[in-house]
Amino acid sequence: MKAEILSIGTELLLGQITDTNAAWLAQQLPELGIDLYFISQVGDNRARLTDTLSRAYSRSDLIICTGGMGPTEDDVTREALSDLLNEPMELQPELEAPLREFFKRRGVENMPERNLKQATLIASAQAILNPVGTAPGWWVEHDGRIFVCMPGVPHEMKQMWQQQAVPRLKPLLPQSIILSRTLKILGKGESAVEEMVQDFIRQTNPTLATYAKNDGIHLRITAKSEDEHKARDLIFETEIKLRERLGTLVYGQDDETVEEIVGSMLQDRSLTLGIVEAGTGGALAAMMTTAPDSPSFFRGGLVSQQRATLVGWGIDPQLIEDNTIMSAAVAEAMATAARTTLGAEVGVAICAVAGPEAFEGQSAGHIFMAVDLSGSVRSVDAYYRTNPNEVKRLAALFALNLLRRALLV
Amino acid sequence: MKAEILSIGTELLLGQITDTNAAWLAQQLPELGIDLYFISQVGDNRARLTDTLSRAYSRSDLIICTGGMGPTEDDVTREALSDLLNEPMELQPELEAPLREFFKRRGVENMPERNLKQATLIASAQAILNPVGTAPGWWVEHDGRIFVCMPGVPHEMKQMWQQQAVPRLKPLLPQSIILSRTLKILGKGESAVEEMVQDFIRQTNPTLATYAKNDGIHLRITAKSEDEHKARDLIFETEIKLRERLGTLVYGQDDETVEEIVGSMLQDRSLTLGIVEAGTGGALAAMMTTAPDSPSFFRGGLVSQQRATLVGWGIDPQLIEDNTIMSAAVAEAMATAARTTLGAEVGVAICAVAGPEAFEGQSAGHIFMAVDLSGSVRSVDAYYRTNPNEVKRLAALFALNLLRRALLV
Repeated sequence: MKAEILSIGTELLLGQITDTNAAWLAQQLPELGIDLYFISQVGDNRARLTDTLSRAYSRSDLIICTGGMGPTEDDVTREALSDLLNEPMELQPELEAPLREFFKRRGVENMPERNLKQATLIASAQAILNPVGTAPGWWVEHDGRIFVCMPGVPHEMKQMWQQQAVPRLKPLLPQSIILSRTLKILGKGESAVEEMVQDFIRQTNPTLATYAKNDGIHLRITAKSEDEHKARDLIFETEIKLRERLGTLVYGQDDETVEEIVGSMLQDRSLTLGIVEAGTGGALAAMMTTAPDSPSFFRGGLVSQQRATLVGWGIDPQLIEDNTIMSAAVAEAMATAARTTLGAEVGVAICAVAGPEAFEGQSAGHIFMAVDLSGSVRSVDAYYRTNPNEVKRLAALFALNLLRRALLV
Repeated sequence: MKAEILSIGTELLLGQITDTNAAWLAQQLPELGIDLYFISQVGDNRARLTDTLSRAYSRSDLIICTGGMGPTEDDVTREALSDLLNEPMELQPELEAPLREFFKRRGVENMPERNLKQATLIASAQAILNPVGTAPGWWVEHDGRIFVCMPGVPHEMKQMWQQQAVPRLKPLLPQSIILSRTLKILGKGESAVEEMVQDFIRQTNPTLATYAKNDGIHLRITAKSEDEHKARDLIFETEIKLRERLGTLVYGQDDETVEEIVGSMLQDRSLTLGIVEAGTGGALAAMMTTAPDSPSFFRGGLVSQQRATLVGWGIDPQLIEDNTIMSAAVAEAMATAARTTLGAEVGVAICAVAGPEAFEGQSAGHIFMAVDLSGSVRSVDAYYRTNPNEVKRLAALFALNLLRRALLV
């Protein structure tokens, strides 16, 4: 079944609200086995909406509309569908009574007459009851096409979709199920990862797709089957092979975060963590303190890029003099200082020139990261030409990955 | 000028990400005097994308595309435009060189060949340079239509739009001018601010609108005129009156941030700053270190919510025992410790229970903030029932406002 979503409302075109309804609905469709090909936002304009509905009618089996179901003149979803299918809107006494009742219960004796249109249907439409608002939705079946029209208020729409639209849709769908699993990767870029798994990307069931995300590269395995066990098996077979090929590049799966993974590695080994950061504003400490149970293993974080402060934390002033703060040598000394001054088993340090200006003679984008694991020190450096926030975020992410790799050994 | 936005990427149709790009772009268009009639999301499918571009071409003057500009086979925005306009993609040596250079600087000697398509153009296209990523955008002018194609990564897209697309668009737009000025407020909620300026909100030119934003309440004054000086005068008259009425509630205007304002107050008074934070993961240090020239006044930040670590930084263990870490008394002692142990004139401290769990007997959402200005200590507390990230963010923001008010005296 080919689906299309239309989100209706001029406020979407003015950027006053973000269309979260479409994203939410889009998430619901794969597991029903419904393919979504298009999403559109259109304003409260009867002619343009009719035109958009007509195009959807010509190319999709299921058209899910949200918005434009209110009582005002701006709300024209019913009118546009009536225009498209050439069926007049007719007042339904069995919808009018509960509508008037709703207003009475709220203490409004005389319901505004404009609300009456919420009690209308066209010949092809059935009402979708709204358990939490005034506007019933429309379920329209016409010549093999289905329109599901719901209000734009997210919590009303979601209830109507789950409680009423999905049960009506299910008997019309082929009985196939779609499952997916995401492997998360740090240490290589998207194209490098894609090259490593090229042969899998050509597979059709399960399919494999790569995404560059904030927390690394995501590899999504998606399987389709009539049988849930079969789908799980399909994913599992591919997952095993991918994990074998990618090894420790994979740090986690699905909803797991790298800070959560590293936090539990530390806890499993009964290790505590100290952090010293120069140039990131404490981005790594901020990440690590979001890990579950972080107060139990996170001793503390120190943030500064002033020489005097760093010297106060135990960095040799001559070392800074010889190398500048922004150097691998100072990052390594800071990792050791993080371990010793904070009384931790593991120290991690970052020296980053977030930019936009150069700092201590190093140009913006230079990052030095070091880990001291019980006295054994390793460091790496990197260079990213991007904005300051991204430099800080990437520095924290890659320092965390350096720590993860140190803990793997 | 009639505009249309296309957001490209299968992940949008799978609901994996919400299309915030379209909403952001939609917000930018009204003040340019551009009318937006349609937004669509379409997957990484060459035929469907070409079809969607073709429809946009037939009905809109300006088509803004985001996404599908990456190096992989999935990325087909270039290909689809090439199909639509029947112009082949041709490799541009002046784009290829910096692309190879970019990879070299990252230590990748052999750029994956698939990246080459990011160095191509069609005959009607000019490159829109990307200051922060590999993919240049395309500015395509064809038969009176303009396509602006940018990557889908939000921070890349926003920079390219503001720095390169808008300056190219401006000369093509009608010359009625809309100017605006935003006054930024901390210390009162939106409805309280709205009540204070009620009489101005009924004005028509300039108009006044309030917005609740991440960094406080924004009061936006917008004037329209054929003449720039006239528009400026209109804004200025209203601004003066508003500033008189709101006094020190106004911390800044337009792009000014509270951290920038506080940073320059500290520099004007030749004061240095130390910060100790428990429970925020260093959110305040993160904010302050984004202020211009922060290395000159920011001595350092300490982040921990472990008793032993705090005691190591000079907090009296008996005080913690009597009050718990999450208390005004400990926040005040931490502000003093921030000042003395970091050798600063001003110390600021936060103790916050970010949640979701209670901590040290205080329930999630409790925040204690303190400032020690050369020995004079003040503190406030607050309670916000929201998610952990918001608690941390609000704690940092309000601590910064506490510091700002301390410095005003």
